[in-house]
This record gives sequence, C-alpha cells and structure tokens, in this order.
Amino acid sequence: MTTPAYVQIIGLPDMPEVRQGDDLAEIILAAAATTPVESGDILVVTQKIVSKSEGRLVDLATVEPSALAREFAGRWGKDPRQVEVVLRESRRIVRMERGILICETRHGFICANAGVDASNVPGADVVCLLPVDPDASAQRLHDALAQRLGFPVPVIISDSFGRPWRNGITNIAIGVAGMAPLADYRGQLDTEGREMHVTVLAVADELAAAAELVHGKLRRCPVALIRGYPWEAAPGRAAELVMDPERNLFR
Amino acid sequence: MTTPAYVQIIGLPDMPEVRQGDDLAEIILAAAATTPVESGDILVVTQKIVSKSEGRLVDLATVEPSALAREFAGRWGKDPRQVEVVLRESRRIVRMERGILICETRHGFICANAGVDASNVPGADVVCLLPVDPDASAQRLHDALAQRLGFPVPVIISDSFGRPWRNGITNIAIGVAGMAPLADYRGQLDTEGREMHVTVLAVADELAAAAELVHGKLRRCPVALIRGYPWEAAPGRAAELVMDPERNLFR
Repeated sequence: MTTPAYVQIIGLPDMPEVRQGDDLAEIILAAAATTPVESGDILVVTQKIVSKSEGRLVDLATVEPSALAREFAGRWGKDPRQVEVVLRESRRIVRMERGILICETRHGFICANAGVDASNVPGADVVCLLPVDPDASAQRLHDALAQRLGFPVPVIISDSFGRPWRNGITNIAIGVAGMAPLADYRGQLDTEGREMHVTVLAVADELAAAAELVHGKLRRCPVALIRGYPWEAAPGRAAELVMDPERNLFR
Repeated sequence: MTTPAYVQIIGLPDMPEVRQGDDLAEIILAAAATTPVESGDILVVTQKIVSKSEGRLVDLATVEPSALAREFAGRWGKDPRQVEVVLRESRRIVRMERGILICETRHGFICANAGVDASNVPGADVVCLLPVDPDASAQRLHDALAQRLGFPVPVIISDSFGRPWRNGITNIAIGVAGMAPLADYRGQLDTEGREMHVTVLAVADELAAAAELVHGKLRRCPVALIRGYPWEAAPGRAAELVMDPERNLFR
C-alpha cells in the first residue's frame, strides 16, 4: 500500500504592516518563528507587501489626470486620478468598456486596472502599483532568504487576476525565483504508456492559487509556506508564464 | 501570538482504474482507508474518472467524420474522427487556427477540444468526453458520500484548461456540489476598514488548482482531500463560475 501524497499550505500569522524599505526576508522569518522554514518549502508572498516594501505607492493628490482619464472616469463614476495612474501603468489597453479597464502592463500581464489597487493600502488617497520587475523582486527575496537560511527557498509573488469567460478572481504568479514555473510533461508517457501531448502545467500559478486558500482577503496573512510539493530547482521566471503574442489566439 | 493557518492537500493512493458503472463513492472511500475522510474535508476528483464511471468514452472506429472535420484534420495532421467528436461536443467554435480548436461546450466552458481527450484512457482509439452534467455528477457523488459517511463532504470535479494570455494549463472546477464555488467579499471591509470592491474569489477553481499539486499528471492519483479550508455550505454549482455572455468582454 502506497502512502498518501501530502502537501501542506501554512499561512504565517502576525505579519506587521509592511512599509517602504522594510527588510521582507527578516519580517517573513520572524513571522515563521513558530513554523520555521524547512528545506523543500516554497514561499508564496502576495504582491501588495512586496510593492509596499519597494515604495510602489502613489498619492493621488500628486496626479494630474489626462483628458482620456477624465472622460472615462466621469462617464463611469470613477476617480480620474486613479484612472490616470492605470493608463500610465499600461502599455496597451485591451478593453475599455462599461467602466472596466483591462490593460496589458509593461510586464505583459493582462489584468484589470493594470494591477493598480487601493484595497489594504494605508491612506485615503493612495493606490498601490505592481512591482517594477516582480521576477527581480522574487530573486532578491530568494537570495536574502538563502543567505539567512543556508538553503534555497523558491519564491512566488502572487496577485489576484480575473479571467475571461469565468467569474471570480484567482491568485496567479507574477514573480518567480528559484524554481521552474512550468512543469513540462511533453514526451513523457501517460499511465497507459502513450506519449502525452501539450501537457505543460503552470505549477507556479497553481501554487499561487493554493496559497490564496490561507491568505484570505480580509485576514492579514500575506505569506504562505507550501510544504511537500516536489519542485524543480531552476532559474525560473514568471515571465515564462506570459504567452508570446505570436502564439496568442486571443490577442 | 496567533497560530498559523493550515490547509492540507492529501492525495489518495492506490486508486484502481475506474470502469463504466463503478461506484465512485465506494472506490474513493476504499482509497481513503489510511486517511479517513473527516467532517470539514473537501473532495476533489478529476474529470476523467467521473467520465469513465459514467461511460463517457467514444470508440473512434464508430465515428464518421464530416467534411469540416476531415478538412481541418488533414491540414493539421490530426485524426479526423477525433476532430469530429470535438465538433459534436461543441455548441460554438471560438477559435479554429493553427491546428488548435477552442470550443464552447454545451456547459458553457471554453476550452481546447471541447474537453475531449485521449490521455490516460485505455484502448488505442478511444477518447474521453466531459460528463454530460458535471454539477449533477458532483451532486450524485456528494449524496452517495453523505449517505455512507453521515456528514456532508463538498465535491469538486476538476479538469485542466488552458488560459488566454498565459502559458500552461491549470486545474479548474467543472462540477461542484455542497459548497459555494465563489466567495463574495463585496461590501465587507478590508484591513484598513474600507469597503472592498469587486472581490469575488473563485475558491472552487483555487481548490481544484491546489488539488492538482498532488494529482500529478503521471501518477495515478485522481482524488484529493483538502483539509482545513473553511468552506461555506451552500447548494453551489460550477455553472456559477461560467460568466454570463452579457458580462463577458471577451466573447
């Protein structure tokens, strides 16, 4: 009889509010005091605390909205300054309808409002932007943790994105370091001994979704350890999850 | 000091090959012998064993391809009989380019090949279809388990779908029973005391993705228990995850 396969998702408690310049590795290891990080663990961190530590906050009082931002905001009852920030964070507008702005960010992510978000941000008129380079942010955290722990811990930075055709948002990986974000089973055999086709799993996105089960949206639990998942060490990046526009049937 | 939040994903071992007419509840409870199902657990089952138990298999030798199927298959080196089955399982073709068929199924799911798949299916020329009504399949399994266990266990039937704009497939929920598939935080307050907007989480999809971490693609582990996630009892259905075409900017 085979033993069951176990994967544990551990939400770290008592995370303080993160501020610009904070040492995220130190804060995370302090929160992990009761459940120390083990070799083999994966760390999943929500985008917001990474952005806050990097000072990616914009005070809307400093923003002068363009005519386009004023027009769209006026029509749909939005803050024109926030719309302006969204436009500045975009390299392409994918859809701009019924008060919804779906944007392609400079990273190539396609999401609502270019990832600009006011929830869980201190200050009445402050919005939070995505990190400039979430893969680089993940790599810095990965390196800082390896230095303190003496072993490598893959890092995933997650954010919640909507999807076409399906209701509700789910967490996906916007930054990755220390592991392959895709598991490529092409050329391997299935349980019937036949070669498998087109089976590339977006494991970093699945790990981000799994971590959301402990993050919650209201509890202050932005950091999760995933224990028991056999990851593949690799110089992976979340950029590998962004589909080449040439291959993209929905561009 | 708060205790950490724990969620466990337990992959049940030693599942036999499932055949038409098999009692899934019985097979699953036998596989759970070493890790008995507990009150509070969620059961995630991959689509393929549900389809097999329901006899949703097609022998391609019995299929006469249409001219459209022969044309597309010939151009892209595919089996015209399998393309024909895909067309029959579709209510709309969303994209038909470069050998890729993205379909809207009768359930409203948008996915490659209308969910028709030959991997992990016994027989050289046999393909597997999605269940006729995956929510009804989930409900039947939910009822059968409740009868044997004496408490309700939410059931999620998962399948791996591709996504626009992102590489790799992830598991999502195509059938749900016994829990709300969406967690609606609209109107609640965030950690800063502000009302949250547009925060509806597709938790059934996140649970399906989490379960995939133990399903694997090559190991025979199609059933997972998720322990420790505070689900909301409700007469939920995966149909709630399918976006109303009226709201869908990408239709």
